[in-house]
Amino acid sequence: MRTVVLKIKYDGSRYHGWQRQQHHNSVQEQLERALSKAFSQTITVEGSGRTDAGVHAIGQVASFKAQMTLPIEQVKFVVNRLLPTDIYITEAALAEDSFHARYHAVGKTYQYRIYTGRERDPFKALYSYHYPHVKDLEAMRYAANQFIGTHDFRTFMASGSDKEVTVRTLYQLLLDEDHHDQEIILTITGNGFLYNMVRIITGTLLHVGAGKLSKDAITEIILSKERSKAKFTVPACGLYLKDVYYDENTLNAFLGENKMSGHVFVDRI
Amino acid sequence: MRTVVLKIKYDGSRYHGWQRQQHHNSVQEQLERALSKAFSQTITVEGSGRTDAGVHAIGQVASFKAQMTLPIEQVKFVVNRLLPTDIYITEAALAEDSFHARYHAVGKTYQYRIYTGRERDPFKALYSYHYPHVKDLEAMRYAANQFIGTHDFRTFMASGSDKEVTVRTLYQLLLDEDHHDQEIILTITGNGFLYNMVRIITGTLLHVGAGKLSKDAITEIILSKERSKAKFTVPACGLYLKDVYYDENTLNAFLGENKMSGHVFVDRI
Repeated sequence: MRTVVLKIKYDGSRYHGWQRQQHHNSVQEQLERALSKAFSQTITVEGSGRTDAGVHAIGQVASFKAQMTLPIEQVKFVVNRLLPTDIYITEAALAEDSFHARYHAVGKTYQYRIYTGRERDPFKALYSYHYPHVKDLEAMRYAANQFIGTHDFRTFMASGSDKEVTVRTLYQLLLDEDHHDQEIILTITGNGFLYNMVRIITGTLLHVGAGKLSKDAITEIILSKERSKAKFTVPACGLYLKDVYYDENTLNAFLGENKMSGHVFVDRI
Repeated sequence: MRTVVLKIKYDGSRYHGWQRQQHHNSVQEQLERALSKAFSQTITVEGSGRTDAGVHAIGQVASFKAQMTLPIEQVKFVVNRLLPTDIYITEAALAEDSFHARYHAVGKTYQYRIYTGRERDPFKALYSYHYPHVKDLEAMRYAANQFIGTHDFRTFMASGSDKEVTVRTLYQLLLDEDHHDQEIILTITGNGFLYNMVRIITGTLLHVGAGKLSKDAITEIILSKERSKAKFTVPACGLYLKDVYYDENTLNAFLGENKMSGHVFVDRI
């Protein structure tokens, strides 16, 4: 038995999320079906984490164990031909036997795409959130600053979640403008995220951008630990799992790269 | 009763085409449902033509008659709020009572998007056709030239169609490169199109681009009037109905504009 790690890109629009479930189509099920066929054995994959229905991935990571009949160099090519056109393996490599895509992840980057055009665009409906009310991107960047660092993020967790440990560290929160696509792209990197945390942080920052919430309010909202103090949860369709990191060096290299590439790096105040 | 004309943009991915039909979701049905609600009366719309399942529209045109309770200036806003997020009215205007979206169309422009990236992109699967084999775009442009003008296009009609008059005039066939999206965009304007004509012309031109068919072969293929001489029909997902024209002046203005805007205009040889 060998352990294989995959990097996967998918359009989540037509799936009930990553996680396999009865009576619903999932990315995991499609992947397991293609892998089981390619390797002629029943294969179960372990993702770095679930993504909700409608959430997309650019760099989801998953691992599985198999009797390797197929050379690793051919895995990507062979399995991609068996996958639906909205799921694609971008990398496949052998990993150490102890590797586990979920337990060993030390950080993740998500992106959230906000379409700011005045009129609704039917071609963007499933790939971004239409919010034409941002007047002050600089205020959003200032507010974003207050999320950086180690905090109890209980305020920014979907109510009803039962996570006991709600302390997480956010390393970076970028807000870039894509003029070609009329989008604001929020890029957030942390050691882990609570349920709906990225979507609630984004909704709260949009309130700041629209002038409905003071740019100085974030720290207080975090400390309040009351879900009702945070603002709305933006919809799943704008969310993309971008990267998963498996050792501190890779994570630091990523953060360093971005610091130097002209992005606005939000330092801890 | 007043006659209203609409310009409509839609992502066709989740519809069984434009045309209303039992047991299948269609763009026409969604539009009629929203209009009937907005005007509190049963409304039937007449499109400029059908689009197949999975085909998109940037500028479909449709007309309908209604007792106008709602001021025309509010139609766009009110009806858009009642439509699904993947359908959007971009313009609404009053027309003469005799106006008919299908009978009065004097020309149409379609676009076909070809994704040329080496690797499959799951986010483009429903919005373009992945064809990474084009080596010679200039040969495609040269071949495209031979389609321009008035011809019997029987060769480029889906077999099984029963159109009796198969003569059509093509005014323009442009092939542009979109480097940002790694796409070739084919833009074709004519006085009318036979069933699957744009998709068969595109498939045939791609054969030329890939070096599988001589760039000089088109005229002979048109004259042969044998469907088997033309090449493959590219899939519906890459096709967009871009514009519909209702008088010669608008059509000529469109063609004139493009001639001057730095596009490659393919003159009749």
